[in-house]
Amino acid sequence: MPSPITLPLHIVADELARLRAEQPLVHLLTNEVVQDISANVLLATGAAPAMIVAEEEAGAFAALAGGLLINVGTLYPARLAAMRIAVDAANAAGTPWTLDPVAVGVLDYRTDACRELIARRPTAIRGNASEILALAGFGGAGRGVDSTAGSQSAVSAAEQLARDTGAIVAVTGETDFITDGETTWATPWGHPMLTRVVGTGCALSALVAAFTAHAPNRLDAVAAACAVMGICGERAESASDGPGSFGFALLDALYLLNPRMLRELDA
Amino acid sequence: MPSPITLPLHIVADELARLRAEQPLVHLLTNEVVQDISANVLLATGAAPAMIVAEEEAGAFAALAGGLLINVGTLYPARLAAMRIAVDAANAAGTPWTLDPVAVGVLDYRTDACRELIARRPTAIRGNASEILALAGFGGAGRGVDSTAGSQSAVSAAEQLARDTGAIVAVTGETDFITDGETTWATPWGHPMLTRVVGTGCALSALVAAFTAHAPNRLDAVAAACAVMGICGERAESASDGPGSFGFALLDALYLLNPRMLRELDA
Amino acid sequence: MPSPITLPLHIVADELARLRAEQPLVHLLTNEVVQDISANVLLATGAAPAMIVAEEEAGAFAALAGGLLINVGTLYPARLAAMRIAVDAANAAGTPWTLDPVAVGVLDYRTDACRELIARRPTAIRGNASEILALAGFGGAGRGVDSTAGSQSAVSAAEQLARDTGAIVAVTGETDFITDGETTWATPWGHPMLTRVVGTGCALSALVAAFTAHAPNRLDAVAAACAVMGICGERAESASDGPGSFGFALLDALYLLNPRMLRELDA
Repeated sequence: MPSPITLPLHIVADELARLRAEQPLVHLLTNEVVQDISANVLLATGAAPAMIVAEEEAGAFAALAGGLLINVGTLYPARLAAMRIAVDAANAAGTPWTLDPVAVGVLDYRTDACRELIARRPTAIRGNASEILALAGFGGAGRGVDSTAGSQSAVSAAEQLARDTGAIVAVTGETDFITDGETTWATPWGHPMLTRVVGTGCALSALVAAFTAHAPNRLDAVAAACAVMGICGERAESASDGPGSFGFALLDALYLLNPRMLRELDA
Repeated sequence: MPSPITLPLHIVADELARLRAEQPLVHLLTNEVVQDISANVLLATGAAPAMIVAEEEAGAFAALAGGLLINVGTLYPARLAAMRIAVDAANAAGTPWTLDPVAVGVLDYRTDACRELIARRPTAIRGNASEILALAGFGGAGRGVDSTAGSQSAVSAAEQLARDTGAIVAVTGETDFITDGETTWATPWGHPMLTRVVGTGCALSALVAAFTAHAPNRLDAVAAACAVMGICGERAESASDGPGSFGFALLDALYLLNPRMLRELDA
Repeated sequence: MPSPITLPLHIVADELARLRAEQPLVHLLTNEVVQDISANVLLATGAAPAMIVAEEEAGAFAALAGGLLINVGTLYPARLAAMRIAVDAANAAGTPWTLDPVAVGVLDYRTDACRELIARRPTAIRGNASEILALAGFGGAGRGVDSTAGSQSAVSAAEQLARDTGAIVAVTGETDFITDGETTWATPWGHPMLTRVVGTGCALSALVAAFTAHAPNRLDAVAAACAVMGICGERAESASDGPGSFGFALLDALYLLNPRMLRELDA
């Protein structure tokens, strides 16, 4: 495999311009802790989130939406049933869908659910190194879970997982790596303060779902989502005193970021 | 019908003074995304929110509360069952209740639920133009859903809905219109940044429920809630850089607004 | 009983240093309104929150965690079932657990649930005066609920409840009192603005659960949690204009507080 290459910022600019023009409707089936920050991250960036959670409605709405997010953070049976219905409807309608396999490999119930969801072939997967290593293990690669693993340690597992499932796989950490199994982008931006606010990783997965909506190039779309969150995380940190002010500065930065700024940084 | 008249600010001042003096207890049965912002908007303005969600408790608490909010944003069967119990208890106890018919007309499950709830005769209804047009269609007016409709386009539907149901109806947008079917107030305040923070519309519905508690004039009470949110939205926007700082500035503005300021603006 | 003594700040410093060194994993089974602020308070202070809510997982995770919080604010049957499983697993594994009996005594369903939970012997209980008076009444002390009671009025009930149950009991208000039934600490810090942001009391209970993790002295641990929240509440208020800016300033203050600052205040 060739080494990961740093994602050029002009690609991020193009993807952000596309998202802002399209304002995609994104169906979030996410955990109960992070619905607020996930929706606000999408609104600040320029997408339109909607949280439709009932089995009675999830299928119809997933077919209408431009993208769908499935996040298993606070999974329970009724919500898992709605997720299955939404995923099947998304697949039938051609709606791209993103899986955030929160804590897969740590607890059996969600691990089994993720195994089942992976078999339904997500368009994109976004996780930390431990989660990607656990998912890759499903495919026979045999890697265990290492909760202290850096993102670098999971690059080859991510590449294998992408080849096995057909998904774009993003393994995020100090540097994020985004791969389709052949080409791997690296996005080196970000700040540790992102780990001091609950839901920034989950909100990044929501942003991945937003960027994949109507995307002509899904690898670039997923990588752009990671880059946007990382760049805005750096900007927010320089304007804040702690995680409280960082949280609102992150939303302001996402709102204020624009393609022209990204192209100037690239020059 | 006479044309809508801009709500005089001395009415807003009187209603806000009344709310601050009474600090009404408001039962919020709202969607799972916006509970935090809805409660914080009430606390900042001067009401006391409580979120009681179980079928085992919702009836007893709705009878104790000064006002009740029903919001169908993330409806599912167990929550709908609790809503039915709460509404029936509110009606029996004389507790005013407000309906926020999120996305009615778009998905069948919530549309059926809203039809059933409307038949239980809410005290107030707060929605955008598309939602009010969909609800008015239940009464035989035959208006379809238009997701791009401005609030002006739904004024006559709102007036008809008020006459059909006995509710005060607020259709909100760039200008808000509040009607009892005979008199229609217009509240022209607000800012588009309100649409970049999740839950500001739902929180406005919670504020409507708070103002209707113990209200001698329900039309004025609902209109005052819309005016307070709009005026504070304008103030927050002038003190913020994006949706993150806007979100907290809105809560500060609601806390700092007082009847004297409103009377001075009116002079 | 000896009179309550103001908690020395060097104890708070020692407890905070311990928490920062250990970064305990804390299992939050809390109400659906306050999950975001509770998790963010723990992340800002230095603990690691995790919200695992399904009956299928709650037991396994409570056994892994350093501390567990049970908060009955938005109780319903499926969540209560998960709480029972988590508490039993915590007790079997020796994980300390904290009970926040939100509105116990006001509504029968949660009152019955709290009676059952108390019988499972929590490590710590954190409530306001009305809640502690209601719980103490279970033991035969016969005190009713007084929703306007100040914390001082519930000190002897708290001491009795601690002796009856073996729990550390914190009754919070303008001054907080923390007792094991023999020794009672008073923490006089805080600010009324804390009551204008939803979930600060619930987040304090989460912080109690974090401080009790691996604590050699549970009385000091619970008292330190109350002191940290109160001191940071004062600091946040002096840096804010209203409840919106207070909310983020509180998180910043929790992040910026350190043992050295506390020891200097103590000198």
